[in-house]
Amino acid sequence: MAKQKRELNVAMVGCGFMGRAHSNAFRQVGCFFNVPYVLRLKVVCARDRSAVQEFAAQWGWQEAQTDWQSVIARKDIDVVDICAPNHLHAPIAVAAADAGKMVLCEKPLAMNFVEAERMAEAARNVPNLVWYNYRRVPAVALAKRLVEQGKIGQPYHYRATYPQSWGADPQRADAWRFRKPQAGSGAMGDLLSHSLDLALLLNGPIVELASILQTFVPEREVDDAVLLLARFANGSIGTFEATRFATGCRNRNYFEIHGSQGAVRFNLEELNRLDVFDCNDATEIQGAHNVLVTGPAHPYVDHFWPPGHIVGYEHTFVATLADFLESLAADTSFHPNFDDGAEVQKLLDAVENSANSRSWTSPVTVAEAGRI
Amino acid sequence: MAKQKRELNVAMVGCGFMGRAHSNAFRQVGCFFNVPYVLRLKVVCARDRSAVQEFAAQWGWQEAQTDWQSVIARKDIDVVDICAPNHLHAPIAVAAADAGKMVLCEKPLAMNFVEAERMAEAARNVPNLVWYNYRRVPAVALAKRLVEQGKIGQPYHYRATYPQSWGADPQRADAWRFRKPQAGSGAMGDLLSHSLDLALLLNGPIVELASILQTFVPEREVDDAVLLLARFANGSIGTFEATRFATGCRNRNYFEIHGSQGAVRFNLEELNRLDVFDCNDATEIQGAHNVLVTGPAHPYVDHFWPPGHIVGYEHTFVATLADFLESLAADTSFHPNFDDGAEVQKLLDAVENSANSRSWTSPVTVAEAGRI
Amino acid sequence: MAKQKRELNVAMVGCGFMGRAHSNAFRQVGCFFNVPYVLRLKVVCARDRSAVQEFAAQWGWQEAQTDWQSVIARKDIDVVDICAPNHLHAPIAVAAADAGKMVLCEKPLAMNFVEAERMAEAARNVPNLVWYNYRRVPAVALAKRLVEQGKIGQPYHYRATYPQSWGADPQRADAWRFRKPQAGSGAMGDLLSHSLDLALLLNGPIVELASILQTFVPEREVDDAVLLLARFANGSIGTFEATRFATGCRNRNYFEIHGSQGAVRFNLEELNRLDVFDCNDATEIQGAHNVLVTGPAHPYVDHFWPPGHIVGYEHTFVATLADFLESLAADTSFHPNFDDGAEVQKLLDAVENSANSRSWTSPVTVAEAGRI
Amino acid sequence: MAKQKRELNVAMVGCGFMGRAHSNAFRQVGCFFNVPYVLRLKVVCARDRSAVQEFAAQWGWQEAQTDWQSVIARKDIDVVDICAPNHLHAPIAVAAADAGKMVLCEKPLAMNFVEAERMAEAARNVPNLVWYNYRRVPAVALAKRLVEQGKIGQPYHYRATYPQSWGADPQRADAWRFRKPQAGSGAMGDLLSHSLDLALLLNGPIVELASILQTFVPEREVDDAVLLLARFANGSIGTFEATRFATGCRNRNYFEIHGSQGAVRFNLEELNRLDVFDCNDATEIQGAHNVLVTGPAHPYVDHFWPPGHIVGYEHTFVATLADFLESLAADTSFHPNFDDGAEVQKLLDAVENSANSRSWTSPVTVAEAGRI
Repeated sequence: MAKQKRELNVAMVGCGFMGRAHSNAFRQVGCFFNVPYVLRLKVVCARDRSAVQEFAAQWGWQEAQTDWQSVIARKDIDVVDICAPNHLHAPIAVAAADAGKMVLCEKPLAMNFVEAERMAEAARNVPNLVWYNYRRVPAVALAKRLVEQGKIGQPYHYRATYPQSWGADPQRADAWRFRKPQAGSGAMGDLLSHSLDLALLLNGPIVELASILQTFVPEREVDDAVLLLARFANGSIGTFEATRFATGCRNRNYFEIHGSQGAVRFNLEELNRLDVFDCNDATEIQGAHNVLVTGPAHPYVDHFWPPGHIVGYEHTFVATLADFLESLAADTSFHPNFDDGAEVQKLLDAVENSANSRSWTSPVTVAEAGRI
Repeated sequence: MAKQKRELNVAMVGCGFMGRAHSNAFRQVGCFFNVPYVLRLKVVCARDRSAVQEFAAQWGWQEAQTDWQSVIARKDIDVVDICAPNHLHAPIAVAAADAGKMVLCEKPLAMNFVEAERMAEAARNVPNLVWYNYRRVPAVALAKRLVEQGKIGQPYHYRATYPQSWGADPQRADAWRFRKPQAGSGAMGDLLSHSLDLALLLNGPIVELASILQTFVPEREVDDAVLLLARFANGSIGTFEATRFATGCRNRNYFEIHGSQGAVRFNLEELNRLDVFDCNDATEIQGAHNVLVTGPAHPYVDHFWPPGHIVGYEHTFVATLADFLESLAADTSFHPNFDDGAEVQKLLDAVENSANSRSWTSPVTVAEAGRI
Repeated sequence: MAKQKRELNVAMVGCGFMGRAHSNAFRQVGCFFNVPYVLRLKVVCARDRSAVQEFAAQWGWQEAQTDWQSVIARKDIDVVDICAPNHLHAPIAVAAADAGKMVLCEKPLAMNFVEAERMAEAARNVPNLVWYNYRRVPAVALAKRLVEQGKIGQPYHYRATYPQSWGADPQRADAWRFRKPQAGSGAMGDLLSHSLDLALLLNGPIVELASILQTFVPEREVDDAVLLLARFANGSIGTFEATRFATGCRNRNYFEIHGSQGAVRFNLEELNRLDVFDCNDATEIQGAHNVLVTGPAHPYVDHFWPPGHIVGYEHTFVATLADFLESLAADTSFHPNFDDGAEVQKLLDAVENSANSRSWTSPVTVAEAGRI
Repeated sequence: MAKQKRELNVAMVGCGFMGRAHSNAFRQVGCFFNVPYVLRLKVVCARDRSAVQEFAAQWGWQEAQTDWQSVIARKDIDVVDICAPNHLHAPIAVAAADAGKMVLCEKPLAMNFVEAERMAEAARNVPNLVWYNYRRVPAVALAKRLVEQGKIGQPYHYRATYPQSWGADPQRADAWRFRKPQAGSGAMGDLLSHSLDLALLLNGPIVELASILQTFVPEREVDDAVLLLARFANGSIGTFEATRFATGCRNRNYFEIHGSQGAVRFNLEELNRLDVFDCNDATEIQGAHNVLVTGPAHPYVDHFWPPGHIVGYEHTFVATLADFLESLAADTSFHPNFDDGAEVQKLLDAVENSANSRSWTSPVTVAEAGRI
């Protein structure tokens, strides 16, 4: 017998692409996971009244509002979810945390590390989450498990690329994502942030880096591409590349780790697959195992469909939310939270510093930064 | 401004794996597609009271019932959806159609062609659908479009395999799927039916065939595997293979068509991909285009996520339902319907006849069958 | 110190595509393998005098001749190698064997089983070889080793396709390969013969089969494509398909075996790869190992280049010849020999009989055939 | 009628892995290409008398010698080919050039740029070649052609990795390749040099770079891995990575170029393939063309086997030699020659400088270097 579930009223700020992905997760998490909460899609809030009304009707939100401050002030809201443009993350998150709400925020967490630290500080006493959803791709979670089990051994190389191509289309005018005041950065905050979050998860801290930030279209305010070399605390070395100008690639978020005992390779365009190389296989049949990560024995997927039935992009949001709610019930610490989001932001600042100074740069804390 | 949408009350009979996939579609179709109906998940019905209650709670059905006859009799039900074991398809569907309900039925439609024809006859005056969901895989719909546009030209070869491996596990006891009275057949009805439905869609009628039905485990009541050779009405020839004993394959529903102008290749384990060969490409760069079928310009996917964000298994049900509702609103004919389901059944009967008689066999109509 | 090597004088009949592949093997076998013979490229023989002279000059044959009978009659010839059109295999091979020469013959061995048996009989007392070269693809030899080691377990399914596309080109006029008197058959003898030879090697005898032989171009004398279903003596079942009309495929000689313990998959267009599935892998990393079969621990390749340096088509001929010469020195039986070639021919006759009679057919011996 | 061919007597210094690849090319170039020279394998020279004698016997060299100086002094030698360890390239090449011989030298050309310039200067008046053989992989030559035809458009990104794994094996003791006095460097000279040569060929000059040189095994004298970021003169940016510690990779020499009109992707482990993305394809079938580069219409391969019959590693040496001999006959300039080899060396010096100085570095000429 299912025991009584607690209701949580959710308010979401933003109703774009991410608003759809979040809404889907709020609607479906209880179907796929036996979470101890019932989520109510209470209010969706965005500036454009007719757009937000239409969105609310389509996704089943009870109310559509246009003023986020008043929404946050409401007593009947338990959770504030943020998927507005980047520059609004901090004000909304801080206000929501100050109002005692749980806060869920899209990535990148902030416009820079100082802002991110401020947000993390504000959210110290409320449950919080940053939507680095790719941690919950089943194949990525499997990679994490293999790393933890020592199946990769001592890591030597980390290689991440996140090539997209839509930026190369001169016709493309994706509003705020090309404007510095709202987006903060281009490929760096949008794509590299994902790669860095996964690197921190899978391979630990980066101690120094050298980078290039590149804008191919002169009139553009933000970077079109970013490259970097990195040294990790564990002794391995890595390369990162994120770009909106990689013709032929839609969303090829890829990483590969080579260690003394094995290797893993992942590509988001084939998100149900993980290539796993195991040095302990018999020599004559050594070769990357092309694993279809749909179970059995794989993370998350027993909650979705039987083995062999693939999952899609949105399942990563559903699984993230499920884990968050489990942590909430168990009163344990959830990751990635605002502190994790701030760690990524610290690296992004270092990337920018390195590119501007044309020199090797170490990520520094705000306190350290203050001393410099 | 969204205009007023008509409400449809749905009753679903069955609450297994397919019950979850159907429930998801009923819940989500209105989020992803702007359909002119609001679906109410009114009643779910299954024999095991506690299971159906738990299922109802998890998937948001308003009521859980155990007696399908009384559910069908209710005035407040508009749509009856059937995902009970195969032997129940006919009685439920006929009763529902007789009661004037729209009828949606899992595949294979029936236990045999005679039964399927009876069901099609009963459903002549009500909107009906058979859940051959793989027609709405975006990559499959793209293949269909390319065929229709003449991009394949005159077809020469059709090749379909549907290998799974779970049947080879002696520990596996998947209840009714191995029992002839409930399932009717094994790999044939379960897997080959999908391959035949796609072949009919993409390559047209089969005029004769020769087959093997194989049961590897002596005590099993149904076929573990089925093979066949086929001649199509369009002059092409084909091979089909479906099995539950293909070690290494989870769900590799695959087809390939070679024609005078091009070729297409699909594999359900990579359902977001279609390989397209175009004889009109410049010679030196001829090679299968590895198309990531997530838009732009691809069927269905603009309703889901932006290009490069892959979809999963359940989206095929959502898209099927969306098209059904569009047809309903437009009062046009929807496919695959019960007549289409019966065509598959006719072929399955021919497969069985051919295997039993060890001879080439042509599919025959019930009338013809009666004369024989 | 290398010990004294015996010299063998080779005469080759034919100077087309296969003549080049054979010449390369004769020239290079001693470089890559430490064989106990020195091969002398003594005479190449073909009808067109200027063509054969040019060929001899290019490939280093000492003499160019146009009359094969007189070449065979020469005392200074030890080995007769046949790569003339199919209808000449039998007369040349029998004459050469009668003259006490070792005989190497291109595949298919003969025009039919009766002829093949006659050749095998004639060659009973001379070393002989049929150039089913794909047995010595390193990946195929690895597959054979895995089968022998029990790594596949009890076989359930064998699936072979050999799709090419050049036949679909109406401009293509590849001389004798489309003419029945010289070629005997089309895709059947040319392509299916390879697939059947590999099936016999890897999965053992076929006990019955049903087939289609198809000619898409009305004026063509030979089959453009052939399909068959087969039952093997070991209880497994299989499908075969060979065609010259598979748009998009150049030379995709492919097979896949599924057994109770594992599976293997091969594709000649990626001839340095073998996909190996092992049911004994830990569940969460089960997936086909994509093995780059270039060593270490792989058949043949330590004779070529270091691991990771791929080999090409002609290496299969070099390795075949090396094994033949090793067998010759050790006085052991070499395979595939004329008896093996005749077994393939027996199956090809059965394929033709089945297609003509539209019925299941068992391969029969000549003696049995006589009784029928 | 073939006209009279000039004979060239070849002396080769070195008899290791590369000695085998070169010998094969000298033996076979005249079979596959109608070159206007006959090459005589006159002398092979190496320090170990018994090894070189055995090598000569196996590969058909007329003589085996141990003193390269005296070999170079001989009047009957036309061509000196160098595949001795790296530190011997310069003395042998300069002596050979001074003696008026044509000089063919393994890569990397030299131990550093100064030495390479000295070699290029010495060879100014004799035909010369550096064995950057991967330029003649048919797929790479096709990529070059596509770049030249403008099919890639304005390049944005260049990405090259050359991962191998044998260095990670602690048991591995590959003699001179780990010793600085003989090898000069590790992964840098061995692997990165290939990647840089291809980058210069396909994408033009590099104007500045930042790098990491990494030695994972403390006692090792040379780098195990090298990473770099680069800016090209054409405005594109790139990453390079070469390593002997990439578990799971045997020889995955890979590059990818993204431009405004298309993209190409290559991987040496699949050397018969080139992935080509064409922005001008119809939107719905845009996707990388997986081209099997075995003809028709592809570089070099019509000299080898018919379309669909793949070539291996050694064909790159054969094709390189064929082009060299064609240039020789036509008295045109051949590439890659010693000047090209020196350009790579200039970049390698810059890589080393950047790694040591931890700063962005521009490649400088010797003259410029002198001024610094």
